[in-house]
Amino acid sequence: MTTTAQKLTGVVPPLVTPLTSSYDVDTASLASLVAHQLDGGVRGVFVLGTSGEGTFLTDEQRQTVLETVVSEVAGQVPVLAGAIDTSTARAGAHVSAALKAGVDGIVATAPFYAATHPAEIERHFVRLASIAGAVPLYAYDIPSRLAGTKLPAALLIELGRQGVLAGVKDSSGQETSLRRLVLDRADAGLDEFVVMTGSELTVDSALGFGVDGVVPGLGNVDPAGYVRIFDAVAAGDLAVARREQDRLFRLFEIVDVADRGRMGLSSSALGAFKAALFLLGVIACPLTAYPSIPLDPDEITSVGRLLERAGLR
Amino acid sequence: MTTTAQKLTGVVPPLVTPLTSSYDVDTASLASLVAHQLDGGVRGVFVLGTSGEGTFLTDEQRQTVLETVVSEVAGQVPVLAGAIDTSTARAGAHVSAALKAGVDGIVATAPFYAATHPAEIERHFVRLASIAGAVPLYAYDIPSRLAGTKLPAALLIELGRQGVLAGVKDSSGQETSLRRLVLDRADAGLDEFVVMTGSELTVDSALGFGVDGVVPGLGNVDPAGYVRIFDAVAAGDLAVARREQDRLFRLFEIVDVADRGRMGLSSSALGAFKAALFLLGVIACPLTAYPSIPLDPDEITSVGRLLERAGLR
Amino acid sequence: MTTTAQKLTGVVPPLVTPLTSSYDVDTASLASLVAHQLDGGVRGVFVLGTSGEGTFLTDEQRQTVLETVVSEVAGQVPVLAGAIDTSTARAGAHVSAALKAGVDGIVATAPFYAATHPAEIERHFVRLASIAGAVPLYAYDIPSRLAGTKLPAALLIELGRQGVLAGVKDSSGQETSLRRLVLDRADAGLDEFVVMTGSELTVDSALGFGVDGVVPGLGNVDPAGYVRIFDAVAAGDLAVARREQDRLFRLFEIVDVADRGRMGLSSSALGAFKAALFLLGVIACPLTAYPSIPLDPDEITSVGRLLERAGLR
Amino acid sequence: MTTTAQKLTGVVPPLVTPLTSSYDVDTASLASLVAHQLDGGVRGVFVLGTSGEGTFLTDEQRQTVLETVVSEVAGQVPVLAGAIDTSTARAGAHVSAALKAGVDGIVATAPFYAATHPAEIERHFVRLASIAGAVPLYAYDIPSRLAGTKLPAALLIELGRQGVLAGVKDSSGQETSLRRLVLDRADAGLDEFVVMTGSELTVDSALGFGVDGVVPGLGNVDPAGYVRIFDAVAAGDLAVARREQDRLFRLFEIVDVADRGRMGLSSSALGAFKAALFLLGVIACPLTAYPSIPLDPDEITSVGRLLERAGLR
Repeated sequence: MTTTAQKLTGVVPPLVTPLTSSYDVDTASLASLVAHQLDGGVRGVFVLGTSGEGTFLTDEQRQTVLETVVSEVAGQVPVLAGAIDTSTARAGAHVSAALKAGVDGIVATAPFYAATHPAEIERHFVRLASIAGAVPLYAYDIPSRLAGTKLPAALLIELGRQGVLAGVKDSSGQETSLRRLVLDRADAGLDEFVVMTGSELTVDSALGFGVDGVVPGLGNVDPAGYVRIFDAVAAGDLAVARREQDRLFRLFEIVDVADRGRMGLSSSALGAFKAALFLLGVIACPLTAYPSIPLDPDEITSVGRLLERAGLR
Repeated sequence: MTTTAQKLTGVVPPLVTPLTSSYDVDTASLASLVAHQLDGGVRGVFVLGTSGEGTFLTDEQRQTVLETVVSEVAGQVPVLAGAIDTSTARAGAHVSAALKAGVDGIVATAPFYAATHPAEIERHFVRLASIAGAVPLYAYDIPSRLAGTKLPAALLIELGRQGVLAGVKDSSGQETSLRRLVLDRADAGLDEFVVMTGSELTVDSALGFGVDGVVPGLGNVDPAGYVRIFDAVAAGDLAVARREQDRLFRLFEIVDVADRGRMGLSSSALGAFKAALFLLGVIACPLTAYPSIPLDPDEITSVGRLLERAGLR
Repeated sequence: MTTTAQKLTGVVPPLVTPLTSSYDVDTASLASLVAHQLDGGVRGVFVLGTSGEGTFLTDEQRQTVLETVVSEVAGQVPVLAGAIDTSTARAGAHVSAALKAGVDGIVATAPFYAATHPAEIERHFVRLASIAGAVPLYAYDIPSRLAGTKLPAALLIELGRQGVLAGVKDSSGQETSLRRLVLDRADAGLDEFVVMTGSELTVDSALGFGVDGVVPGLGNVDPAGYVRIFDAVAAGDLAVARREQDRLFRLFEIVDVADRGRMGLSSSALGAFKAALFLLGVIACPLTAYPSIPLDPDEITSVGRLLERAGLR
Repeated sequence: MTTTAQKLTGVVPPLVTPLTSSYDVDTASLASLVAHQLDGGVRGVFVLGTSGEGTFLTDEQRQTVLETVVSEVAGQVPVLAGAIDTSTARAGAHVSAALKAGVDGIVATAPFYAATHPAEIERHFVRLASIAGAVPLYAYDIPSRLAGTKLPAALLIELGRQGVLAGVKDSSGQETSLRRLVLDRADAGLDEFVVMTGSELTVDSALGFGVDGVVPGLGNVDPAGYVRIFDAVAAGDLAVARREQDRLFRLFEIVDVADRGRMGLSSSALGAFKAALFLLGVIACPLTAYPSIPLDPDEITSVGRLLERAGLR
């Protein structure tokens, strides 16, 4: 029903999940967030990923997110859904639920908690792809959350060749390994294999060496900024791309305003994204999922100052 | 209905989950495994933990395990159940399901995938304890599976003092931190707080410096051996305890027989435990949960040789 | 006597130390290597660094390297020398020896073996700078060799402001932290502070976001290639820069030809650089310092094939 | 000339190196420290190790330490000397210097800074042993300082069998691997191979499962306490051993009194040992080697309170 036949490129933000003060999914705010993204010019949205706090939500809450976003996007761009869980059986159930909601792509990590081998990760993706059927499956490489498990380039390329994977979202933060993947893809003649970076601070560089797009957490806040980077690189205007990236690099300092002595890294980063969206009037409440500690009013004020410095208020 | 009023001590193995060749829970084998444990003299059993592949199973499979074990144990010893999941909401659902099945204790890790702070872990345990009600909640400290998240001794003691936690299963492998916990417990006058070690290779030492018992994965295979260590230490017969521990230390080499070039650490270890139980006639099939790679016939034969060397065949 | 008044920029390879078959410094080969570099158009050379196996050599051998290179370079470009040792006292002695030999710059890591704090690293650099006097001191950030010790951007900028440090060689492999440093430098108005990257696989990107130059181990083999990247970026010809970087990215595969089952990472990488230089006729013997295991003839042949693929033979 | 023919056992503290306020070796305090140790009943002393700040000292300072201690000990117990440096050539020079001073044993780590392979570590030890000649060489396993390099049990046993190594000091903090070594030693029939633990907080346990002795940093402060543990275990009086170990466990909290926000882990721990010795009147000045930050007066006072609690003042 949407653009799945076309290769995924450009800016595809991983949407946060707005919550009410009683920790329910705030569908009105979620609809508003979708509009904010479409206005910004994104080429897709990704729900129930790390930024979407997908691992915090119940199955019912996940379903609400899926249905709301599919409905609000209404086929204008592809909707991708995370299937991030500890095992193949559990992730497979998420795939089925997402398909039922009508998504255009699935994004799945390796299994975790139990330590796995690439041969086991391969079995995992093969099984999920068979459940996904015609809907493209993207691998999600995020070793920092998976006790160090890194998806090997050779496995990704091989699964691309077999048609199991349509691409990868690389959130490893390892530029060298990402660049190797781009080169290996070229050597394999696998142009249709999508390589997206999840590293929101080096997007101009990554586009420069050949990735297809970016899945930036900070894109929740300023999707138009990331779209400007993408367009500038496409136009060969590297100076503009760098200036915009540098501005967003500084804006990313919002993830450090919270006192790390009283909350975790996830809470601090997602809390800042939500605080910014709250201050911009996009969502109604900056709360992160339980048991995350929320930002306090002073911290939210600091986020506001950084939004101003970045020209967003 | 069982012995929950009494402090948990002694050998409490984390039961593996026997599977059929089509990856269903094999309830007959599970019943046989329970009998094997009770015959061995264990003081409790722990289901749906790391050894139980709890993170691999569907909710339906988990329920089957809970009901089978509660029914087979029939109140002879406490049954503990794992509530290991990425968030409070999900772990809380596991707690509710386990209570409904009639377990005598809950064992929960910190949330994972998202990085958490001790203040957030505290909120997690407080919420789970409120769901568990009168059923004791034990913390499960296993940083190797949780991207390094270690439960601080001060947090454990404080939650013990508040009545949130009844104790901890320490699978950190850090003898020094475990010993600090035992000393801090004494300083806090918190004798009722249960400290169990999950380190199956140094049980005599750990009992020697004051832990209450052990949750040994290898105890699936040889529960009686671990019971002999416990009884020997209780009787002050350290030489016997050491001899028995040394024998089991060598038996633990079964986890290294599989070719790590083709499977993960979890598959190799749990595959070996299951292969041993299969060879001993306790369970019908040595398969580990999908997508784990199974041991091959040669590897199973090697497990058999090590069982013989340990006097078990 | 040389160009120290000018800001260091461009390609400054970290020279390997050619050895004879009896593990002495091969001064003739070292002279030949210097000529190879100057022919390639480098803007400086760095001796006794990680690639130079400085931590393997005796004080006498170090002196031979310093004197040979200073004499061969003869003031055409700056000569930088490593002062990499476990403590301030020891590194300080290396600084004194290098000054006596007439070098134009010093490159020093934090102390290691003992774990240090930034405040202690600051004392270290302040002391070394006072020994170095008018000769510029560069910090060397290489956490992989220093048990994870990373030089904080704030410390580097502050020491730059105080005139203690003239710049930094960043071999952290962390693009984001490198980019932050470049932005912080701009914010501090500290344009004269030199930022060089040691990451030889992403040089076009790093130059693109503002670093001043590169210290590429692979530059031993193909200095002209790196000079072409630098010149292309300076000319705004990003496509040429990327093509050249991609060619060198593939050439870097020489570091993986050796069987890692029988030697360490250092031996494999430095052995490959030396094997390539040996095959190109630049040095007489590919041996790495004792106790490193040398590449075998088959592995050297494989290095040769990759040289051919990169158009170097 | 001393007891080298006898197997090393018991308590062998790694002596700190007392410094004057101008960072010279304080030979009078060092003599006093030796007397403190001999009074405490130690079976040997180890100089220029990690606690001895050997990697901080110049060659001249090292020589002063060696000569002072050999002279003060005067053959009453063996004197072991550290040969801890980045390469075989450098460590070999330390071995020669130590032999000239008349030590009774050498303690050497693997090379570091450059990453090494076990086959390279083997070459390192073989070369050092050939320099040491009849003087026994002990391996020093301390992965925390060596970027994770761990000496494999199989290598240690093999080098013991070949007569290259007389034993090992295990400061890995990995009880399981230490226990494996003790079992492997027994399997190999290599009773003369010395296994000492450097983990000062679990000495009763380690002696319980078969190590020969301990090299406790905290033994600088309270050698008699460690000797009591050793004697109690030898006498089979485990309760006494545990009580004494628990007292010393709590005394070890002195390493945490310093503000880790302003100094490194080494400074905090060694500063505390020296502060305690200063307060006990054993040494004249608590300074640690440059560039370490020293403890401040309040922190030294806190050390004093913990000494009192442990019954030492």
